[in-house]
Amino acid sequence: MAKLNKDAAVHGILIQLPLPPQIDAGRVLSAVSPAKDVDAFHPENVGRLVQGRPRFLPCTPQGVQQLLIRSGIEIAGRHVVVLGRSHIVGRPLSIMLSQRGPGGDATVTLCHSVTRDLAAITRTSDILIAAIGRPKFVKAEMVKPGAVVVDVGINRTAEGLVGDVDFAAVREVAGAITPVPGGVGPLTIAMLLRNTLLAAQSLET
Amino acid sequence: MAKLNKDAAVHGILIQLPLPPQIDAGRVLSAVSPAKDVDAFHPENVGRLVQGRPRFLPCTPQGVQQLLIRSGIEIAGRHVVVLGRSHIVGRPLSIMLSQRGPGGDATVTLCHSVTRDLAAITRTSDILIAAIGRPKFVKAEMVKPGAVVVDVGINRTAEGLVGDVDFAAVREVAGAITPVPGGVGPLTIAMLLRNTLLAAQSLET
Repeated sequence: MAKLNKDAAVHGILIQLPLPPQIDAGRVLSAVSPAKDVDAFHPENVGRLVQGRPRFLPCTPQGVQQLLIRSGIEIAGRHVVVLGRSHIVGRPLSIMLSQRGPGGDATVTLCHSVTRDLAAITRTSDILIAAIGRPKFVKAEMVKPGAVVVDVGINRTAEGLVGDVDFAAVREVAGAITPVPGGVGPLTIAMLLRNTLLAAQSLET
Repeated sequence: MAKLNKDAAVHGILIQLPLPPQIDAGRVLSAVSPAKDVDAFHPENVGRLVQGRPRFLPCTPQGVQQLLIRSGIEIAGRHVVVLGRSHIVGRPLSIMLSQRGPGGDATVTLCHSVTRDLAAITRTSDILIAAIGRPKFVKAEMVKPGAVVVDVGINRTAEGLVGDVDFAAVREVAGAITPVPGGVGPLTIAMLLRNTLLAAQSLET
């Protein structure tokens, strides 16, 4: 890792998780130079994100945010409910969408496995983002008519790749909805490339 | 700062904000050794907090959390509404209370100046935490009967120190409420001393 951090020909480093059990993932992630950490998983980059001065935005949350912005979905002042508090998606997304400025200023509620009366909360959301890894968990009766539904889930099931949202039923009530596969997934890769380009530009200057 | 970071007789460093305008506060805060950063404002410590493996917890949010825990207030599964998204109080508190484990597992909604229909949201909260710096902003009709109200505000007004909550009116509907002065304030100092002790123990071993 020290060699890659120093190598001027390397602009971005991504640790493919999960690592084998004998390797401490936290230590490996912290060893990546923050300037090459295109996943934005290094604690310094997570901290900078929270402080509103990010070097890179984490890829999947950034993809979701760009999807909303570029689809002309109003975010500021609206109630966003994020399902799932993972370090990779739910947590950073809840932070990004509630931050001051463009692409933010939403009122965000972060829900998770311990949340009580979940459907009552999700029904109040203007934008519902599912990132919990449970196939077809979000049903039509959990969604406010006209709400925007973003499905970050990718679950391998007997019937193929399935999101966290019961797409066929929810599309009947939602104002807009993303499919799985083909919705958020490709944006994650695009944002990774974007971060790598940003890293290269920053390291070369 | 480099001298203090190296001095083995110094265990904790706190930057008293605000700094004079010619000094870049971000650079100064980032120059504090994370191991001596008893305020927990260094980006690495903020990142570790988000990742659920904090070195130190920020003082005021930690005080609020301890106040709830030691008063026997149930946090897990309950709906907490945090008013204010400052880097010092609202943001880290919203993260801490929604994290997995003891003192966490709440469903947290973070509200701020751009939030629409604020009273409708605050009225759904089991625990309401005000940290916006506006005297007597929270009125009785914004509080669900029986809710726990924590007032982090300290506003200097003509009638003296006043919190963010209209104490006299809200105490009539709340199930529990903290006063200003004398509520959260002293806990901030206690947690700063706790962090300094933790820093010393960690640096001496």
